[in-house]
Formats: sequence, C-alpha cells, structure tokens
Amino acid sequence: MDDINAPTRRKLFETIGKAGGMVALYQAMTSLGHAAETQFNGPPKLSGARKGSTVVVLGAGLAGMLAAYELTKAGYKVRILEFQGRPGGRNYTLRGGDSHTEIDGTTQKVEFSQGNYLNPGPWRIPHHHRTLLHYCKQLGVQLEPFIQLNHNAYVHNTDAFAGKPVRYKAVATDFKGHISELLAKSLQQNALDEKVTTEDKERLIEAMRGWGVLDKDLSYKSSLKVSGQRGYDQPPGAGLGGVPTPSNITTLHDVLDSKVWNTMSFYFSYVMQTTMFQPVGGIDMIGKGFAREVGHLITYNAKVSKIGQNAKGVTITYEDALTGAVSQAKADYCVCTIPLSVLSQLEVQVSDEKAAAIKAVPYSGQVKIGLEFKRRFWEEDESIYGGHSFTNQPISLVSYPNFNFFQKGPAVLLGAFASGANAYPLAGMTPEQRIEAALAQGEAIHPQYRKEYMNGTSVAWSRVPWSLGCCAQWNDESRKEHYQNMVSMDGRIVLAGEHASYYGCWMEGAMLSSIDAITRLHKRALEA
Amino acid sequence: MDDINAPTRRKLFETIGKAGGMVALYQAMTSLGHAAETQFNGPPKLSGARKGSTVVVLGAGLAGMLAAYELTKAGYKVRILEFQGRPGGRNYTLRGGDSHTEIDGTTQKVEFSQGNYLNPGPWRIPHHHRTLLHYCKQLGVQLEPFIQLNHNAYVHNTDAFAGKPVRYKAVATDFKGHISELLAKSLQQNALDEKVTTEDKERLIEAMRGWGVLDKDLSYKSSLKVSGQRGYDQPPGAGLGGVPTPSNITTLHDVLDSKVWNTMSFYFSYVMQTTMFQPVGGIDMIGKGFAREVGHLITYNAKVSKIGQNAKGVTITYEDALTGAVSQAKADYCVCTIPLSVLSQLEVQVSDEKAAAIKAVPYSGQVKIGLEFKRRFWEEDESIYGGHSFTNQPISLVSYPNFNFFQKGPAVLLGAFASGANAYPLAGMTPEQRIEAALAQGEAIHPQYRKEYMNGTSVAWSRVPWSLGCCAQWNDESRKEHYQNMVSMDGRIVLAGEHASYYGCWMEGAMLSSIDAITRLHKRALEA
Repeated sequence: MDDINAPTRRKLFETIGKAGGMVALYQAMTSLGHAAETQFNGPPKLSGARKGSTVVVLGAGLAGMLAAYELTKAGYKVRILEFQGRPGGRNYTLRGGDSHTEIDGTTQKVEFSQGNYLNPGPWRIPHHHRTLLHYCKQLGVQLEPFIQLNHNAYVHNTDAFAGKPVRYKAVATDFKGHISELLAKSLQQNALDEKVTTEDKERLIEAMRGWGVLDKDLSYKSSLKVSGQRGYDQPPGAGLGGVPTPSNITTLHDVLDSKVWNTMSFYFSYVMQTTMFQPVGGIDMIGKGFAREVGHLITYNAKVSKIGQNAKGVTITYEDALTGAVSQAKADYCVCTIPLSVLSQLEVQVSDEKAAAIKAVPYSGQVKIGLEFKRRFWEEDESIYGGHSFTNQPISLVSYPNFNFFQKGPAVLLGAFASGANAYPLAGMTPEQRIEAALAQGEAIHPQYRKEYMNGTSVAWSRVPWSLGCCAQWNDESRKEHYQNMVSMDGRIVLAGEHASYYGCWMEGAMLSSIDAITRLHKRALEA
Repeated sequence: MDDINAPTRRKLFETIGKAGGMVALYQAMTSLGHAAETQFNGPPKLSGARKGSTVVVLGAGLAGMLAAYELTKAGYKVRILEFQGRPGGRNYTLRGGDSHTEIDGTTQKVEFSQGNYLNPGPWRIPHHHRTLLHYCKQLGVQLEPFIQLNHNAYVHNTDAFAGKPVRYKAVATDFKGHISELLAKSLQQNALDEKVTTEDKERLIEAMRGWGVLDKDLSYKSSLKVSGQRGYDQPPGAGLGGVPTPSNITTLHDVLDSKVWNTMSFYFSYVMQTTMFQPVGGIDMIGKGFAREVGHLITYNAKVSKIGQNAKGVTITYEDALTGAVSQAKADYCVCTIPLSVLSQLEVQVSDEKAAAIKAVPYSGQVKIGLEFKRRFWEEDESIYGGHSFTNQPISLVSYPNFNFFQKGPAVLLGAFASGANAYPLAGMTPEQRIEAALAQGEAIHPQYRKEYMNGTSVAWSRVPWSLGCCAQWNDESRKEHYQNMVSMDGRIVLAGEHASYYGCWMEGAMLSSIDAITRLHKRALEA
C-alpha cells in the first residue's frame, strides 16, 4: 500500500508550494498524476504536410472522420471510403421512419413518434472523456446531462424479494446498514485489533455508526432516521397529518439475495461515474457534426475488398455497393478504421504480425431494444426520472430517457441492454420475439408495460452487416501478444478505432486512437 | 426487524396478483406503502365556495400564492398582502442589477454577468416533491437536472491529506475498500459466526470482495481494477502509449481523517438523492409562474401590523411600506403564511396555545455566497460539471452551476452554504469580509480562485428584513408541544408555510401545508 501522503512526495509538494504558491502546487500535483483525467492533451497540432501528400481513410466513423478532419487541416489531401450510405459508423441513432437490416436480410422499420429515438451503440459520455468533449465543443454539438445514478430506480432480482422490484435507495441503504453493524460489532469485540490501531478503531466505529445509520447499540434497525435514507412508509407531510412513519428495513439475508452491491459498484465504475452527458437529440449529432466538416470528402457505399501497399503508396480496391462497379483509390498513406470483425475478412497487405493481430480479437454482440410507450408511466406513476433499473434477467436493465422529462405523450426507454451470454439468445430471435422477451421481462419491474406499449425496435450487434459485432474484446493475453502489432504503423498503413485503444467500446478510445495514429503517420510522412 | 417479504403481506400480494393481475398488484403494493413517495394526492379539489366568501392571504410566497390560486378556483374572492415589492418570498433569485439590503441597512448590488444568478434560498427539487413538480408543470415552469452527486468533485478536510482536496471517487472507493477488507477478514476468521449464518457468511464475503474490489486474499490493494473505480495514475489511452497505470490507494487512517462517509451519507439522504431538478433560469421561475396566475390579487409593500378576528371575520391592519399610509383589509377568513420569526412580533388575535406555538420555533440563519469567476476553471481544468465539493471549513461546500456547461465566459458558483455554528461568524461580517472568507477558504480547494475572481454577493438569512431567518427549526420537544396547535385552524385564521409542516426548509413543505390549510378552511367555511 502506497500513500498519497508518502513522505517524499509530500516533501516535494511542500517545496513547490513554498516556492510557487498554490497554482504551482496544483500544477505539480497534476503533472505527478494526482489529477490525471485523460491521455488527451489537446487536439493534435499537425501542420506542414508535404505538398500533394494524400491519405485515404477507410470508414467514416468517429475515428475516420477525426483523422480526415485533422489531416486536412495539416495540409493532406484526404478522401474517405465508407461502406454505408451515411456518416458516423456505430455512432448512430434510430428514429421513426428509419429502417435497419440484419445480416440475413431481416429488416425492421422504426415506428417511434417524432422526437423519440434509440441510440443502438454509444449513448453516454463520461466527464473525463475530454477528447470527445473537445470535439463536441468544436463541432457545436450541444450536450445535456445523462442521469446515471437514480436512487429511486429499481433493483430487481428474480431470486430476491419474491421477484418484486425494490427501490435502489432502500436496498442499498440496508446493505450498508447491515455491513456497518457487523463491522462495528466486530471492532467492538476486538476481533480486528491486529489490523486496526486503537485510535482508528474508535474512529471507524463512529464512521460505521454515521454511515450505516446505526442506533446507540450499533444496531441497524427500522427508524425515522433510517427512513431518512431508504424512504418512509409515509413520507413527511404538512398540516394535521404531516407526521412521517418509518419504513421497515429488509434483512441481511434478503439484501444478499438482491446482489445490490453489483449495482452499487456499477455506479462507482470509472467510466460510469457522474457527471455524464449525452448529445441533445441523439448520439449521432456527433457524427453529423464531423460530417459537416468532412462530409464532402466521403465516398459512400464503398465496399472495400482489398488494401494493398508498396513502397510508393497504398491502393484500395472497392466496390460500389449499389452498382457493383469496382474502383481503386490510391494515396500515399492509409488510415484504416474498419472494425476488425470485417477487416479480418478482407485482403490486407500487412506484415504477418499485424495480420495475426487483426484476426486475434473477437467482437462483442450486445443487443439493445428500444420500446415506445404511450406515456412516461415511470415518471408519472413511479417518480423515476432517468437512470437505470437493473435486473438479473437477460435484458439486464431498463434505462429511462434523459430528456423531455415531465412531457406528456409517447416516450422511448431502453428495454434491454444485453451482453455476453445474455445477448446470444436475444440475437437469435426474430425482432418480434425480442420485443416479446423485453416486454415479458420488463413487466416484472413495470406492470404497466403491456397496457402502455406501442412499438419497439431491436439492434443485435452480432447481426449488423457493416460491423459484425459491437466492439473489440481484448483480454490480457491478446493485449500482450497483439496490441503493439495492432497499433504500430505498417509501411503506409495505420489502424485506428476503439479496437486500437485501451478504451474499447468507447468513442473516446476511437478518437484517442485516431489522434495517436495520425500523429505517427504525419511524423513518418515528414521523415519519408 | 421486519421483512418486506413477511408471510402475511406476501400472501396478500399473491392473492391480489392472482385475482387482478400485475397492475392490481402494483396498486396494492403502492397502497400498502411500499412505493409511497409523497403525501401529495393531487391538487386540492375545492369547489362551491359560498357566494361572496372572501379570504385574505398574508404573504405572496409559494404557500400564499398556492392558497390564492386554489381558493380563487374554488370560488372565493381572494386578496394577498405582501410586504415586499415582488412575489415569491424566499423563492427568489439574485441577478446582475439586483440589490438587497440587510436589517442594518447594508446594501449589496449584484454585479453578475447576464444569465448568471444566485438562488439565495431554495435551489433544488427532489424527484419525490410531487406537489412542487405538479405546480411547475401546471404553471409552465421548465425544469432541468440538478447534478447532485459528482464523483469527480472534491472532498476537502483541513485535517486530512495535508489539507489537500482529494477526488470523491478516490477516497470513497478507498473507504469501501478498507471496510470491505476488514469485514471480509473478520468473517473469514469466524468472528461474526453468531450473527451471520454459514450460507450468508460465504455470500457476504463474496459481496465484500466484489463491492470492495478486494484481491484473491481479500485485501484492498492498489491495482488497475481498483483504479477502475478510484481513478488511474495514467488513465487508459490509445495507440502506442495507451496502457493505463494504477493509482495508489490511501490508507485507512488517512481515509478516516477525511470523514468521507459524511459526504457518502449526504448523497444517500432522502431529500438529497438523485434525480433532482432546478428551474431553467433560476428558482424564482416558480414564484413568477404563480404570479402570472394570482399577481393581480397582490397588494405589494403591505406591512402587516395586526391580525384581528371576531365571529364575523378577520381584520388585517397594514401599512404601505412606501407611503406609511395605514389601511385595513377585511375578509371572512385569513391564510397567514408570514414566517414565524416575523409573525411572532406582530399582534395576532389567536388562542394562547397558538400564540405560544408561534413563539416557540426558532429560525435558522444560513449564509449563501455566490462568486462570479472569469471562466469555468472547475470544468476546463478539473473536469467538474455540477455537483458539490465538501469541506470542513465554515463555507461547507463549493457547489458548481448546473447549466450552461462547457460555455466560455463568466460563471457563478455557490462559494459558501454555511449553516448552524458556521453561519453566525459569516453573518456578522461585512459583505466584503464574507467574500474574502469565501475566497480564502475556497482557494484551498481551487487554487485558481484569486486569479479568476470577478465579483460576489452574499445573503445572510438571519439579516434578511422580511424573514429574519431562513426557515423554522423544529425539534422533537417543540413538535410534541406546539405542532398541532400551530397547524390547527384558530377561529377564522389558519397558518401555512414550511413552518407548518414536517418538511421544514423545503418548498414542498410550504406547498403541502398550504393545501392542507385551505382544504380545512374550505371545509370549515362550508360548515359555518
């Protein structure tokens, strides 16, 4: 165990503080990593490309469009080849009137009302994803808070509380109450004297009493004070009948059934912590923002079949997905952002090591289901505004919309966000069966589901033709063997995308990767 | 300890579920209190007032205006007497160009830039304050999320970490890590075998391992996994240098110094839990919303000196605060919402019991200080978007604005929210001294303070002439002796306001109180 106040470090801070004042001290703390929030150090400062240098970018997702945007500014002549008929890649949003087709041809038409949407891929932005925040600002993408932790949402576990949902606030309060009681009593009985000093022991008992809302005997019991966290049977009111009545706590045994600590831990996860944001109007506002800048460089419906290179340049062979016409694009360099799931099926002229890396990383297959309901019953009936109710059923969660709070009329919630083993059965179903599964599981949390349901749409990422998966699934072994080979520049080709980062499945990873890739490409180009 | 699954209750639910389906079951659960969120059952349904019946309302705060709004709809002829020259009472907002004067004549002129503001009184709305939410909807008051829990804000304690601020996420993660380790090891060493069954013991150890992010030996140690909650030394990146490095955990001893569980508990408080809201543009949008409906009924600058009543009606004596002219207002009934701090100094014709109640409740004296800075350095330098940094200094917290995120230019943060013993010294200072105190204490958290400071304004509630305090401070004894006497109807007079509720200091309490008061007044008027 190291200590933030370790003598040497503290001494250094003190010296700096004396010499340069608080601002210098703050900067020193930052530079020593204490306030490090990101690897983003501002947009790449590229300039002075050799006259006439050209780059072909494969894929008009965020990584590809960022590369095109910054390389163009640096003086390169850039073009982008994109398989789909729109920019953004996995950064996209489904709205009423849109349709989407799976690998077997199954097509769904989205029936959402005006203004409602589903973000099938990325949907939320951590406050520390400064690359993404930088480009949102630069591109005029307006952001609004994404409610992450909602104490009033439900925790649902089919093995707990007879399968009934319970409010997060209630069961989380009970969890910390019970463990505080146990730890406090254990300390009191001197069971931990070897591990805790006498001074800390007393302080820790008081901490447990406060944090766990324990009574004078260090017991966690139903009381108005406890209800002041977990909720009341009758909440405080006013006038003659204003007096509140306490709610009944649940037992440790039942709390353990609920596995609520999984939810509590989720909210502590670095990438899930508040404050989070979402673009106003849908996540695709980011892709559209980039497209305003580089859309004129994009050739749509360009299905790449071969990526070749030699000492003089790169040659990309592609087919027009609408006409079948085959063309070639030539350039000095190539930034390839095609997902590995697709890239691994193409002919790519790279070293054996990179070829092996491209084939080494499997892709995840999340399933998201958007359900439109006639009204916001979760708000109107249950006082739930944004956030998530988690369940141990395959749908994993019900996530509530974070915009147009309090509005009348139809709204879309995320009725499933299944991953891993939960995703495969859902992906194997027809769209109608998926909706039925989402309704059947969701109504265990919200009995209003059937009565209020209007329509829904599902995206099973393993069946999306243009990505064949959601995102790269690295593990410790594949990182060790293949990561550096993946990201290294190979002749005139460099890969970029979330797969070429330690931020897999996040837009931030794709963008940081793109910055790293084009920075090295530019350096190489100037050295050439 | 009672159990949510207690057999009788569960049996009842099962029976209802079989008989009436899930919706019936849900309603039954709600009616049994499991989902009780409020004492609000919709706006009062008052109608059929006796022709020509009149009510005088004292005070144009939320309680007073709600009373006027609903009583007018019920058929009463209502007028409101208001001491100030504006509606809203404590529901108010200070903007550039406003000025405010304390009891000794000290006047501050607010210098905030266009669009910036300070809410000196109420400022945030819990999701379960359904009375307030109802009227916001009805009056067209637009709401936006109020960020409450921000994992990236600071915890600051002058006695911890050499007085340096630490990120909430880091020290809170360490707190739960250390206590998880201690409890897990205590369980493992059979110290709690009398309190926990063998089955639960194993499950609880696994819960501690997961929730506390313990290693295979049940120890809490620096690791990438732990950094995945508390933050990294170098966060994950992309490309060649993308690999993250772990941060160093702090010791239990240092965590105890920080008293972080106070902050953790605060976020668990029923009235502080997410999701919270604020009106777009300032809290006074609520008062202004009511004033759009009942503003024409208000006589401003009316300083009440006497509240009289007899068998035939009430007579209110008041002075025009601008001209000194004395007038009387007569009506059949009176709803008095004047704060007890002021009311206790007037001549009021009520029973001895009510008179005693009016004198029995002291008022709190919070101090709020708004500071305007040249730029949002907390966002730009420190990735803090909304939420609070808590400190053990008298300012208590620094709270960040929850609107106009990412914008350039000046912004106002709440630089102090002092109460209790912390408030008195600040209230005793000149406005300039208060600002200096806020800057001196705040720069221990944000060293940018002095460089970026523009101007500030402070409101010391104990020195506000029209309320002489912030809100009523009941305790168990005064509740027992005086509460029912306070809220009971006394002849033709009924009191309303946050002081006549179990929701002291909250707008919800004032509004629930008003609904209760006018419902009883109406009943009495029809019986008369």
